[in-house]
Amino acid sequence: MWSIRRRLLIVFLCISPCAAVHAQGLNWNEVEPGVWRGIAGKPEAYDLIKASGATANASALSKLPSVDFPIAKEAIHTQIIDGKTYLRFPLEKGEQIYGLGLNFQTIHQRGKVLQLHVDHFGGKDNGRTHAPVPFYVSSKGYGVFINTARYINMYVGSAVRKDSETPAVPKDRNTDKSWSSRPYSDAVEILVAAEGLEFFVFTGPKPIDAIKRYNLFMGGGPLPPRWGLGFTQRVKTLSTAADVEKEVSEFEKNGYPLDFVGLEPGWQSKAYPCTFEWDKGRYPDPKTFVKTMLDKGVRINLWTNPYVSPDAPFYKNILPYTGSHTVWNGVVPDLLTPQARDILFGQMQQDQVSLGVSGYKIDEVDGYDHYLWPDVATFPSGMSAEQMRQTYGVLMQRYSTEMFRKLNKRTYGLVRASNGGANAFPYVIYDDYYNHEDFITALINSGYSGVLWTPEVRASKTPEEWLRRMQTVVFSPMAMINAWSSSTKPWSFPEVAEQVKEMALLRMQMLPYWYSEFAKYHFEGMPPFRGMSLEEGFSTGVVKVKGNTNLEENPYAEAVSKEIKDQYMAGESLLVAPLFAGQTTRQVILPKGKWYDFFTGAYVGNGEVITVTPGLNKIPVYVKDGAVIPMMQPRLHVPGAKEKTDLEIRYYGEQPGHYMLYDDDGESYNYEKGQYSFREIRVEKQRDGGIKGQIAAAQKGMPNTIGKVTFKQMTK
Amino acid sequence: MWSIRRRLLIVFLCISPCAAVHAQGLNWNEVEPGVWRGIAGKPEAYDLIKASGATANASALSKLPSVDFPIAKEAIHTQIIDGKTYLRFPLEKGEQIYGLGLNFQTIHQRGKVLQLHVDHFGGKDNGRTHAPVPFYVSSKGYGVFINTARYINMYVGSAVRKDSETPAVPKDRNTDKSWSSRPYSDAVEILVAAEGLEFFVFTGPKPIDAIKRYNLFMGGGPLPPRWGLGFTQRVKTLSTAADVEKEVSEFEKNGYPLDFVGLEPGWQSKAYPCTFEWDKGRYPDPKTFVKTMLDKGVRINLWTNPYVSPDAPFYKNILPYTGSHTVWNGVVPDLLTPQARDILFGQMQQDQVSLGVSGYKIDEVDGYDHYLWPDVATFPSGMSAEQMRQTYGVLMQRYSTEMFRKLNKRTYGLVRASNGGANAFPYVIYDDYYNHEDFITALINSGYSGVLWTPEVRASKTPEEWLRRMQTVVFSPMAMINAWSSSTKPWSFPEVAEQVKEMALLRMQMLPYWYSEFAKYHFEGMPPFRGMSLEEGFSTGVVKVKGNTNLEENPYAEAVSKEIKDQYMAGESLLVAPLFAGQTTRQVILPKGKWYDFFTGAYVGNGEVITVTPGLNKIPVYVKDGAVIPMMQPRLHVPGAKEKTDLEIRYYGEQPGHYMLYDDDGESYNYEKGQYSFREIRVEKQRDGGIKGQIAAAQKGMPNTIGKVTFKQMTK
Repeated sequence: MWSIRRRLLIVFLCISPCAAVHAQGLNWNEVEPGVWRGIAGKPEAYDLIKASGATANASALSKLPSVDFPIAKEAIHTQIIDGKTYLRFPLEKGEQIYGLGLNFQTIHQRGKVLQLHVDHFGGKDNGRTHAPVPFYVSSKGYGVFINTARYINMYVGSAVRKDSETPAVPKDRNTDKSWSSRPYSDAVEILVAAEGLEFFVFTGPKPIDAIKRYNLFMGGGPLPPRWGLGFTQRVKTLSTAADVEKEVSEFEKNGYPLDFVGLEPGWQSKAYPCTFEWDKGRYPDPKTFVKTMLDKGVRINLWTNPYVSPDAPFYKNILPYTGSHTVWNGVVPDLLTPQARDILFGQMQQDQVSLGVSGYKIDEVDGYDHYLWPDVATFPSGMSAEQMRQTYGVLMQRYSTEMFRKLNKRTYGLVRASNGGANAFPYVIYDDYYNHEDFITALINSGYSGVLWTPEVRASKTPEEWLRRMQTVVFSPMAMINAWSSSTKPWSFPEVAEQVKEMALLRMQMLPYWYSEFAKYHFEGMPPFRGMSLEEGFSTGVVKVKGNTNLEENPYAEAVSKEIKDQYMAGESLLVAPLFAGQTTRQVILPKGKWYDFFTGAYVGNGEVITVTPGLNKIPVYVKDGAVIPMMQPRLHVPGAKEKTDLEIRYYGEQPGHYMLYDDDGESYNYEKGQYSFREIRVEKQRDGGIKGQIAAAQKGMPNTIGKVTFKQMTK
Repeated sequence: MWSIRRRLLIVFLCISPCAAVHAQGLNWNEVEPGVWRGIAGKPEAYDLIKASGATANASALSKLPSVDFPIAKEAIHTQIIDGKTYLRFPLEKGEQIYGLGLNFQTIHQRGKVLQLHVDHFGGKDNGRTHAPVPFYVSSKGYGVFINTARYINMYVGSAVRKDSETPAVPKDRNTDKSWSSRPYSDAVEILVAAEGLEFFVFTGPKPIDAIKRYNLFMGGGPLPPRWGLGFTQRVKTLSTAADVEKEVSEFEKNGYPLDFVGLEPGWQSKAYPCTFEWDKGRYPDPKTFVKTMLDKGVRINLWTNPYVSPDAPFYKNILPYTGSHTVWNGVVPDLLTPQARDILFGQMQQDQVSLGVSGYKIDEVDGYDHYLWPDVATFPSGMSAEQMRQTYGVLMQRYSTEMFRKLNKRTYGLVRASNGGANAFPYVIYDDYYNHEDFITALINSGYSGVLWTPEVRASKTPEEWLRRMQTVVFSPMAMINAWSSSTKPWSFPEVAEQVKEMALLRMQMLPYWYSEFAKYHFEGMPPFRGMSLEEGFSTGVVKVKGNTNLEENPYAEAVSKEIKDQYMAGESLLVAPLFAGQTTRQVILPKGKWYDFFTGAYVGNGEVITVTPGLNKIPVYVKDGAVIPMMQPRLHVPGAKEKTDLEIRYYGEQPGHYMLYDDDGESYNYEKGQYSFREIRVEKQRDGGIKGQIAAAQKGMPNTIGKVTFKQMTK
C-alpha cells in the first residue's frame, strides 16, 4: 500500500513545481513510508546518519499506517543567512514538544532555548547534555530530525516573529498585571552553522508512531543480549582478578543475582591516559580470569576512555591518526580514519574481546569542555573538532560494536555520549550527576530521543535512598550498581538487604518481559521506557502551573497542569511511579482505562489521580486492564542460549489479554537472519471468573528457550 | 621617539618577508605606539571598533614608554580552519591572565574555557556576561584584543596540544596521586566563526601600561559630568511628578545628598514594549517637572529598553528599519540603519533630552536568550543577529551619547550590555544579580576590561547589609541606590541611617578626587577602579589553593595563594577592603610600601597581611605613603559649573606627595577643545614634623572651580 502511495507522491513532486516551496529552496522527498526528507541548501558531507551508519528498517516502516504529510509544507521555511541554515517549523496553540535529547529536568520543551551540544549535563537543561539528539516529537503527531553533526541552536516556541500569523498582543507592563515575560510564540526556529541541511519529518498519526518511525529509520532500537538485562555491579578500580572472583562469590553466596561485572580503570596498566592493555600485576592471566568468570555465568565489562597513553603498545602507530590536542595528555584517535579504528579496536579485540570480554563502558567522550579536545582542535581526517565532538560517542559505539559483531556476539555496554542516529547501538548512557528525581526525568526523556539511560545506583546516604534507587533501576534498561568508589554492596545496608535482593530477583523474574519489550524496540521501534504523554488516555498535559494557582482548592487541576516527570511507562503495560528518599506518599495519574496493582492484581482506578502510601518496601507499579506479563523463576544468572525456562504468565483485569513473546538464542546476531520468533499469547476471562490462556507453539527450526508455561490470574 | 621606531618597524615588515609569519597568514603593523595590529585572513567589515566608532588618543599613547613587541612573533599562530579563524598566543609558566570582560566570580582567567557572548550573568563565569570584552592582559605585561563582533571561543590555558613545546608529563591515575584533571597548558587558543580576524597586541612594559594603551586606543575612558559622580536614587515605577518632587524634598529635608533621580518604566505611557513618550497622567508637564528638578540641583535619568511598542508615536516610521523578531512584542530598531537611529533618538532628543533630561538607563540589551531576539533573527542592514547582539549595547551607548553631545552636554547613564571598544562611553553597567561579594569581583574585573560597573544598593535584609553595601557603592563609579521596588530609602533602616548619610556625604566630599581620577581614565587610560594585581608591590598571586592544603598550619600561604577578589584600588591611592554582611573581621593584603588608614591617617603596615575588625560603621580603606587626597566640604549637590569650592587636601605618611588635580566646567565637552587644567599639588613633610603643601596656580582662561585650599596632615 505505502509503496504505491510513495511512488505517486514522488511523481507528484516531479511534475508539480511548487513555486513557494522551491523559492525557499526546500525539496521534500518521502524516502521511507511516512519519512520525509527535506533539503535546504547544500548539506555537508558528514552528518549524524553518516557517523552512525544507520540504515532504515524499511520493512518495519512499511507496516506502519500511511499518513499524509502532517504540516502545511508552506509553513515550513528555510533560508541560508549569515552562512548558516535557518529552518522554521510552525507550532499550533496548545501543541507540545518533547524530545531534543537527554534532558534531566524538563520533559516539555516548548518555550526552551537550547544549543544542542554534546557535553556533560551541567545542572541546567540548556541543550548541553550527553545525548543532545536533534529529534523532537509534537503532541500533534509528527516528529522532526535535524541531520547535522554541528551544534544546533533551537528556539522551541520561544522567539516571536514580527510577521507571525498568530501574533501575541502587546501589553503595557506598567499597568497590565497579565503582562508576561514570555509572549506567545508560534514556531520552532533552528539555526545551524552550515550552508545547507538535511532534515526529516516523521508522520504519526500519533506521537508514538512518529517516534517508532524515527527509531526504525535509524535501524530500530538495540536488542541486547539476554544477559545484558540481568543484574550488574562494578568493582573498585584497583581490584585484582582475585578480588573480583571473591566479590562474585559473595553475590552467589548471598543469593544476589549477577550477570556482568564492570572493571574500572585499574584493569589497565595505566589509565587517564589509557594503555588499553591488562595490568599484569592485577590481572596476571586475563584469559583464565575471563573464562573462570564466564563459567560462573558472569561476564566482564571493561571501563575505558579513548585517550591513548604514550605507554600504550600501539601509541607510535596511532600517533599520525590522532587529533592536534590531547586529553589528559593522551592522544585522541581520529575515528574517521580507518587506520585509527583498526589500531585502537584491533588492540581491544585482540587483547580483550577475543578472551570473552562482553563489553565496554566508554567514559568521557562527552565533555565537559575542560576534559575534552577544544573546538580549535584539528584531526587528520579533516573533520572539525565540533563535528568530532558531536559524534565521537556515536563512533565509539559503532566501531566497538563491530568487534563483537565480527564474532557474532552481541554486546551491551555503557557510554557517556551519544546522539541522533545511534539508536540501534547496544549502549546505555550514564553520567556523574546523581539526582534521583532528575534521573527518572532523563529515563523518560530517553524514550523521546531514541537513546537508553540508566538511573544507576551509586553511594546512598541512607538505607531508604539505597532501596528507593534500587527500586527504579530494576525498572530501567540496565539494572546497575555503580558504587565501586564507596564499595557499597547490595547487602551493605542490612535494614533493606532483603528488599534489595527481592528487587534484584524481580528484575530477573521479569526477564521474558524485558527481553520481549527490547525486541519490540528493535523490530517495531517502540521505546521500552516512555513518558506518559505517549500513553493512550493520558492528557498531553498543560505544562505550567501559574504561581498564584490555588492548588489546595483545585487538586485535580494541579495534577494535570504540572509537568509529569515522576511516573513513566516500562514496556507495553507497566506504569512505574517511584518514590524518592524522604517521600512516603505520592500522587499517581492513571490514564483512562482500568488500572491494577502489578504486585497484587487489585484494581486501583481509572483515569484519575490516586494517592498512594506504599511503604518503603514497595515501588508503586500499575498495569493496564488486560495486561499480560511473562515472568520466569527468580535466578542468579540469565539462562544460557540453549537452556529452557519455565514461564508464569500473569494476567490482570478483565479485558482480553494479548502479548507477543519474543524468543531467540539471546546472544548472537542470528536474529538478523530470521532466527527468532514472536509467540502470541492470548488470555481471556471465563464466565466462571477464571481465565483461559494460550501461547502459540514454537516455530520449528527457531531457537526455543521456553519450557513449561503456566498462567496466573492476578485480579480476582 | 616612538614614531621613528615605528617607521623602522614598518620598513622592516616591508623589506623582510618573514616566511614563518607569512605562512601563517599573519601580518603585523604597529598602528599606534605600542599598539600592534595583526590580521589573519580577511576580517569582516563589521567589528567592535566599527560598532563603537572608537578612535585612538594618539597623543596620549605617544607619551607611554616605548617597548618592544612583547612576544616572539613566531609563537603566535593563526589559521583558517572549518571556515573559522584560529588564533593562538603562547603562555609561559606562572603567567597570569586577567580580563575577558565582566566576570563575577573569578579574576584570574588562566585555565578557563569561555564563550564570550553578550548575555546576563547566569551564575557561572563562562563568558556569557553583560560585557564579554575580548581583551586580556597578561602578568607578563602585554594585552591582547580580538576585534570581532562574533561570539568568541576562548581556551585560556586550558587546552593541551600534542605539539606543545612545554608538554605536561602523562601520569597514571590508577596509582599516581599527583595526577591532575587539568594538565598544564601553554597557550591561549581562540576560535572565531569568521574567515578572518583583526586583533591587537598592546605592549607594557607593565600590565597596567597595556591596559592604559588599550583604553587610550579606544579613546580613553569617559569623563562623566561632575554631577554623575554625586549620589543617585531611583524611584517607584508608577511614581508621578508629584511623587518624585516629594521624594527629592525628603532627601533635602533629611540631609542626604542627591544629584540625579532615576525614573523607572512608568514615566512612559506604555512599557515593555515602550512608547518613548511621557505618560500624560503621571507626568502632565514634563518640561516644568524637569526644570523644577534642575532648579533644585537634581537631574533626571530615564529608564528605557529599546523595544518599540505599536503605540509609540513613531512606530510606523521605524517599522521598516526593525529586525525580523520582536522582544516582548516590541520591534527592535536596527541601529545600523541611519533611519532607525534618526527616528528613535530623534524622539528621545525631542521629547526628553531637549527638556533637560540628563541621561538614560538602557535596560535589557544583554539577554538572557528568552528576553532578546534569537540568533535566527535578521535585520534590514544585513547584519547578523549574533553581531547585533554582541554590539547592541555599544550602539545604544554610542548614539544616545550623541544626543547630548549635540547640546554640548555630558551625560552619565546606565546600560546593561557593553563590549570592547565602548571604553569611552559614559555608561556604567548594572544587572539584576545581587551577590555583594560577586559585585566587588565585577568591580575589580571592570578595570581589566575598559568598562565601568556599579555595585548598586537594592533591597537589603538587614541594616548591616544595607550599610555594608552602601559602604562599597560610594567607592565605585556610580553611587546609586536602586531600591525602588522595595521603596527602601537611605534612611529606611533607622539603626544605620546616620552612618549611611555619613557615607553618602563622604562620597560628596571626595568629589575632587573622584573627578580627577576619572579625568586620568579619560586622558591617560588609567582605570579608576582596579584589581590588586595592577598595584606596584603586590604579587600577581598564585591562584588556586589545593583542596588538601592544610590552611591551619600555613595561614600565610593561604593568604597569598587564594584569589584576591575582596579588595581593590579606587583611584590612584586608595585600597578598599570591604566587609560583607555577616563579617566582623577580615584580612587585608597590603602591597609593599607603607600604608595608612584613610580615615585616621594611622600607619597600618607594609607588604603584609593584616587582620582588621573595624566595626560595622567603618569600611577599611587604606592609602599609600605620600598619598594626596583632595576633598571638599560635604554637600547635597555637586557644585555648578561656575561655582567655586574650597578644598581640603589630605596628606598621608612621610614620602613626598604629588597629585594632579583636574578641573574643568564639569558639564560640557569643552575639555575636548583644551578647556581644562591639571593642577599639580605637592606636599612635603617638614623637619618640624609638619607639612608644606603647594598647588599650582590656575591657568588663565581655563575653567577654575577651586576656591580656598588648605592642607591637612593626616599622619601625625
